[in-house]
Amino acid sequence: MTRPGEVALIERFFAPLAHDPAALSLLDDTAVLAVPDGRELVVTADALAAGIHFFPDDPPGAIARKALRVNLSDLAAKAAEPPGYLLTIALAADWTEDWLAGFAAGLAADQAEFGVSLLGGDTIRTDGPTTLSITALGTVPKGRALLRAAARPGDIVCVSGTIGDAALGLLLRKDRGRGAALGLAAGEVDFLDDRYLLPRPRLGLRAAIAAHGRAGIDVSDGLVTDLGKLCRAAGTGADLDVAAIPLSPAARVALEHDPALLAGLIDGGDDYEIVVTCEAGAVEALVAAAAAGVPLTPIGRITGEAGIVRLLDGEGAEIAFEKAGYEHF
Amino acid sequence: MTRPGEVALIERFFAPLAHDPAALSLLDDTAVLAVPDGRELVVTADALAAGIHFFPDDPPGAIARKALRVNLSDLAAKAAEPPGYLLTIALAADWTEDWLAGFAAGLAADQAEFGVSLLGGDTIRTDGPTTLSITALGTVPKGRALLRAAARPGDIVCVSGTIGDAALGLLLRKDRGRGAALGLAAGEVDFLDDRYLLPRPRLGLRAAIAAHGRAGIDVSDGLVTDLGKLCRAAGTGADLDVAAIPLSPAARVALEHDPALLAGLIDGGDDYEIVVTCEAGAVEALVAAAAAGVPLTPIGRITGEAGIVRLLDGEGAEIAFEKAGYEHF
Repeated sequence: MTRPGEVALIERFFAPLAHDPAALSLLDDTAVLAVPDGRELVVTADALAAGIHFFPDDPPGAIARKALRVNLSDLAAKAAEPPGYLLTIALAADWTEDWLAGFAAGLAADQAEFGVSLLGGDTIRTDGPTTLSITALGTVPKGRALLRAAARPGDIVCVSGTIGDAALGLLLRKDRGRGAALGLAAGEVDFLDDRYLLPRPRLGLRAAIAAHGRAGIDVSDGLVTDLGKLCRAAGTGADLDVAAIPLSPAARVALEHDPALLAGLIDGGDDYEIVVTCEAGAVEALVAAAAAGVPLTPIGRITGEAGIVRLLDGEGAEIAFEKAGYEHF
Repeated sequence: MTRPGEVALIERFFAPLAHDPAALSLLDDTAVLAVPDGRELVVTADALAAGIHFFPDDPPGAIARKALRVNLSDLAAKAAEPPGYLLTIALAADWTEDWLAGFAAGLAADQAEFGVSLLGGDTIRTDGPTTLSITALGTVPKGRALLRAAARPGDIVCVSGTIGDAALGLLLRKDRGRGAALGLAAGEVDFLDDRYLLPRPRLGLRAAIAAHGRAGIDVSDGLVTDLGKLCRAAGTGADLDVAAIPLSPAARVALEHDPALLAGLIDGGDDYEIVVTCEAGAVEALVAAAAAGVPLTPIGRITGEAGIVRLLDGEGAEIAFEKAGYEHF
């Protein structure tokens, strides 16, 4: 089988994605990027390996979109505006041109959706499974990134969208028969499957959280786990009102059929929603500013008890909680 | 065997490398980086896989340093000043804490040598061989990056250091007995081995090439191949004076014993020297400015014949040249 070499492969599959002049048409090994005066750079990198973070037989376009979106989600949590990304891809020995064409088509679709451009990268081969690494670059007005460490005791904790859908989607991918047992209609199963496969980076919340938020983190490892990380960076604790955590109709149905799913839902990970804290006086303005797009829901508050994340029921009593967060590593 | 999870692993091995405030102590998933007014960002990414770009049993510190240095070399060719880098690492199943400690120690040594800091990244596991991806960030005064595309017909082509040592080093790693046949003393074999294992990014040339250079590229795939890439980006050709290409004493000895090595030397790759072009009138100033550190040697000139790289002997006659460049992909 003859397959294109690296130069031909870049020209065919990746150069069409590099429409930003900063990418220098991928003819240079570097990108040269202006950061406007008064703004600073926000940069993040995430890697994904076949067999660990995605199934090798997932559609290549979905793999590409997931890889890009998990990085954009990190930028979204900082209220950063993403100009673009670099991609390094280590291709397994059995890669095909069709696979790569599908992969590039997925990137193209998301570039259009999120207004980003491929800026550079590297294509290598590996004797192992395909592995991707994306570095996403964004900018914010100087000093305005929503750092985790910026959370303060008394802040209200809000979360975007709904929590637990992706964890349920993963559960159903591993056990197709479970859907009926959980009382889920076919459409609900599809919804949950899609929520697992295709994260929605909440870049649309940028204006709202930049104006009214203080600290931010995206939910990748699980709501409780990631709130714990925010608290660790800020030297704070948090109280979480479990009854307030927003769930989708499908997740509510599943939870009614199997209440033991609760921990797996609220700390299952892969949500790619955003946790934002704000001063108590700003929460109404924050929720109102977000309402036009993805809703933000108050779910708790930051406390001064460093490192302690408490889960409370509707009456404020503490709920025992076994750590359920899935550590991707 | 109990091994640390991702959080403990980052805290132990990587957080000590993240001394730049922009890295937010690796407690955030992003780095926030100021780009001074009047400067712009230069960014590059390269990936390396065990079994392809390094031997799995190479010392882990050497693997780390090579991965970082090949990226810094890309920045050096643009006259960029590197503030730091992001690292994603997919660890093979058999990774050990000792291996990771050696890897981190290699990074620490090079951070001190080149004045850079780890800014962020990701640590995952893989079912395949260990794979690394580094994104290096630098800055240049606006409009002053030495883009490949900036080369113009009539420019003089210069190269730093010596060419072919790493290719010889790789040859000797694969065939230890060859050293004696090539007339090489043990010290020369060690020199060549080290040149293969440990690239020297030519960041020390920044002032000289920023002041007097026009276009730049680092030599990773081979002098002839990479000069061809520069010409492709610039829409030019180049004439290369083969006799002028600087060789180390060890490479000269080997070439005397086996003249057939010539093509493998001048296009073998892994040199991580820099090719810089400059206006004809600037070459003396460029060479003089570089003289205090790594020497720059004029080796040819840019022509208007797009895409044609000619190799000429001392009398200006063309030398037939079989493509020898090793494509890493």
